[in-house]
Amino acid sequence: MSKVLWHTQMSLDGFIAGPNDDMRWAFEAESGGPDETIDEVLERVGALLVGRRTQDVEDREQQGFYGGAYNGPFFVLRHDLPEQPPVVKGVTGVVLDVSIEEAVERALSAAGGKDVVILGANIARQCLAAGLLDEIIIHLTPVLLGGGVRLFDQPDGRPVKLKRTFVAERGQLTALGFEVID
Amino acid sequence: MSKVLWHTQMSLDGFIAGPNDDMRWAFEAESGGPDETIDEVLERVGALLVGRRTQDVEDREQQGFYGGAYNGPFFVLRHDLPEQPPVVKGVTGVVLDVSIEEAVERALSAAGGKDVVILGANIARQCLAAGLLDEIIIHLTPVLLGGGVRLFDQPDGRPVKLKRTFVAERGQLTALGFEVID
Repeated sequence: MSKVLWHTQMSLDGFIAGPNDDMRWAFEAESGGPDETIDEVLERVGALLVGRRTQDVEDREQQGFYGGAYNGPFFVLRHDLPEQPPVVKGVTGVVLDVSIEEAVERALSAAGGKDVVILGANIARQCLAAGLLDEIIIHLTPVLLGGGVRLFDQPDGRPVKLKRTFVAERGQLTALGFEVID
Repeated sequence: MSKVLWHTQMSLDGFIAGPNDDMRWAFEAESGGPDETIDEVLERVGALLVGRRTQDVEDREQQGFYGGAYNGPFFVLRHDLPEQPPVVKGVTGVVLDVSIEEAVERALSAAGGKDVVILGANIARQCLAAGLLDEIIIHLTPVLLGGGVRLFDQPDGRPVKLKRTFVAERGQLTALGFEVID
């Protein structure tokens, strides 16, 4: 069955973006070679569900999702609709102004039996809260940022238990996989 | 040469204590068997330098440092001096109301050529800022807490680069070692 998977890079101190959405630390910390974890994610993904901030960074950096290696369908969940639909490396995305449940359903339909990969902490948080998230894959990066956008920031939420499914050294990055238990 | 090493447990989302200094998540997530990383830390440590909050948790939980496996010298850096010196599993600690530099120097002297292990985020942060921290060892715990005390929370600080030195599976915990580069 298709899974909903959140894939993100994170600093050791739990930030997924630095102050002012700075992502240079992440680009600087590339694993420096082939990364089988990314290859595996790319094999599994049938559709991306992307948040506003991730899309804004992509619009600015023009790297393409997975450095341009992904060119399948993508959905952007945002409530401020842009005038033009987003185009990433020649692929036109669909902007959704719907609930998280409907957004995940739309992405799953488009994934054709493959998995949906979430890019964006805010969407991942909403998926978690709605019980829609199956897995988390993190590329842990050896830097302390001290400030920025937190992986998970829900002071009133209850703790979420995870089960580690793998850990792997990818250059100086550490890839970690978790199942969401409850 | 003696090293100054920060050893801590951390939730996947970067908390070292839950809301209200709750540490139950950490005790619940024991690695469930022998942990060679802890054995290695215990072999290396000649003195502990402990923060106020860690000491308060120890006073409350009475587990002893490293579950009672450590019974060497320890120093507590706090600026509210208690009436009685702290006693942990029969060992009397020394309370210091001094600068971080002097506290580290005192602990290094007591360590007799072995390493100083820091327990406590606030002290570790001060060591980092003063350029006194050599290594970080983290037992990453598969839970998202959402709130509590952050590993590293210094929005105005500059990023600190690290180099991963090891990663190891310890039951469901993941032990990670880092050198502080700059």
